[in-house]
Amino acid sequence: MAPPDADIYPEATGLAIENVKTHQSPAPLTLYAGWFCPFVQRVWVVLEEKRIPFQYAEVNPYHKPESLLKLNPRGLVPTLEYDGKPLYESTIVIDFLEEAYPDHAPQLHPKDPYEKARQRIWIDYVTSRIIPAYHRFLQFQTEDGGADGFEKVKQEYLNSLREWIKEADPEGPFFGGREPGMIDFSFAPWVIRNWVFDEFKGGSGIPKEGEAGDDDIWKRWRKFAEAIEDRKSIKETTSDAEHYKPLYKRYADNIAQSELAKSIRSGRGVV
Amino acid sequence: MAPPDADIYPEATGLAIENVKTHQSPAPLTLYAGWFCPFVQRVWVVLEEKRIPFQYAEVNPYHKPESLLKLNPRGLVPTLEYDGKPLYESTIVIDFLEEAYPDHAPQLHPKDPYEKARQRIWIDYVTSRIIPAYHRFLQFQTEDGGADGFEKVKQEYLNSLREWIKEADPEGPFFGGREPGMIDFSFAPWVIRNWVFDEFKGGSGIPKEGEAGDDDIWKRWRKFAEAIEDRKSIKETTSDAEHYKPLYKRYADNIAQSELAKSIRSGRGVV
Repeated sequence: MAPPDADIYPEATGLAIENVKTHQSPAPLTLYAGWFCPFVQRVWVVLEEKRIPFQYAEVNPYHKPESLLKLNPRGLVPTLEYDGKPLYESTIVIDFLEEAYPDHAPQLHPKDPYEKARQRIWIDYVTSRIIPAYHRFLQFQTEDGGADGFEKVKQEYLNSLREWIKEADPEGPFFGGREPGMIDFSFAPWVIRNWVFDEFKGGSGIPKEGEAGDDDIWKRWRKFAEAIEDRKSIKETTSDAEHYKPLYKRYADNIAQSELAKSIRSGRGVV
Repeated sequence: MAPPDADIYPEATGLAIENVKTHQSPAPLTLYAGWFCPFVQRVWVVLEEKRIPFQYAEVNPYHKPESLLKLNPRGLVPTLEYDGKPLYESTIVIDFLEEAYPDHAPQLHPKDPYEKARQRIWIDYVTSRIIPAYHRFLQFQTEDGGADGFEKVKQEYLNSLREWIKEADPEGPFFGGREPGMIDFSFAPWVIRNWVFDEFKGGSGIPKEGEAGDDDIWKRWRKFAEAIEDRKSIKETTSDAEHYKPLYKRYADNIAQSELAKSIRSGRGVV
């Protein structure tokens, strides 16, 4: 019997499927993707921003194509096929795109080596701190862990967002200022998936303007989040909300079977 | 009362202290270090290999200097001070050194973007798979987890080494061939700390030449490990074995109080 995640909607929808249709021809790069996967979206958005030609290949995680398994025996997405060879790990892949396509403006890392390294610290913070905090909050079951436990994972998530945005350029709207870069696109897929807490957990706890708890840090956060949500490349790689909901409900009920879901359940982070 | 790790020997010894003595003058870079810390050694070795001038500042983890805490409130080592500003996370710091000092040969990443990205995948594998496996094996307590559990963590460690070395250049001795690079220096501190299993766990299980279980993969591994152990920069950043032993005994007894020790104990990885 298929695992419960097997009823994933089979393809992108909304603006994302329009985008997918423009990436059907064979190209030197193939992106093995899942339309719903935030790690895929990191790579997809960077390909769009840099206008790098690629072919999009939707992978059904329960019927992985041989062509993918030959490249990457674990069959994980995103996998990028480049000149017949595989690359994976989303943050490594996007750095690769920057270096392998130097003529494809814009350059998405700061030119200054110090500022580039500083931003890489905060990209790493997204992966090693914010994403696990997002999942511990989303997968938390109050009947197992109690109301105090719920409040704790919620505050850990909120604090991780505050720590991150405090490091951003004060004006913004993006992390490094007026133009978005690798750090913004590395985080964007989770920023636009903050609705899961409204849908399944009674709210994320991020105050709206003027609400109790609002302050300059949350104002800066909202400015950033709105700029991300408005970005063309983000919209064009995002499917209709209705198709994400059943997927994220499995996380919210803590019955999802993805590698990440199981890792969080066992107390580990993003591995 | 001081925690049990507080009796760490206060400074580097052996060849390492001779090296430290050459890095006492103020310089544009300061390396906040612990002589025993493998993450520090990653950065220290790269500084030596590239002959980048720096000042070495030994940090007593139980009396952290104000100058460090001002730069990095968590006070972790390695922290690199560059132009009065902090950088941390060892793999990010070594990439920074490569980019900020382009005139300091040798370049330690492959020039080819694909090969560079591929090696970064296997650097990431060291951090996210091999180091946690090393610590789960080292910190395993048979009286809690049983002999089967012990065999399992041991095999996981050995398998992680085999997966990694299979990706290396067939001739070697280093990962990418005759010359060492970032991937070798990223892994070296743990390669030279494999003795902990002989000392505390009845052997690592890596076969010696001709022993039961020996094969081409282990032959290639030994060639790599010997090349690492022979490297001047590694020797000059390594202290006398006797001073590591009490530190690693705390890990072997699973009573070490470092962030990493606690993270592994709670079932998480390197965070």
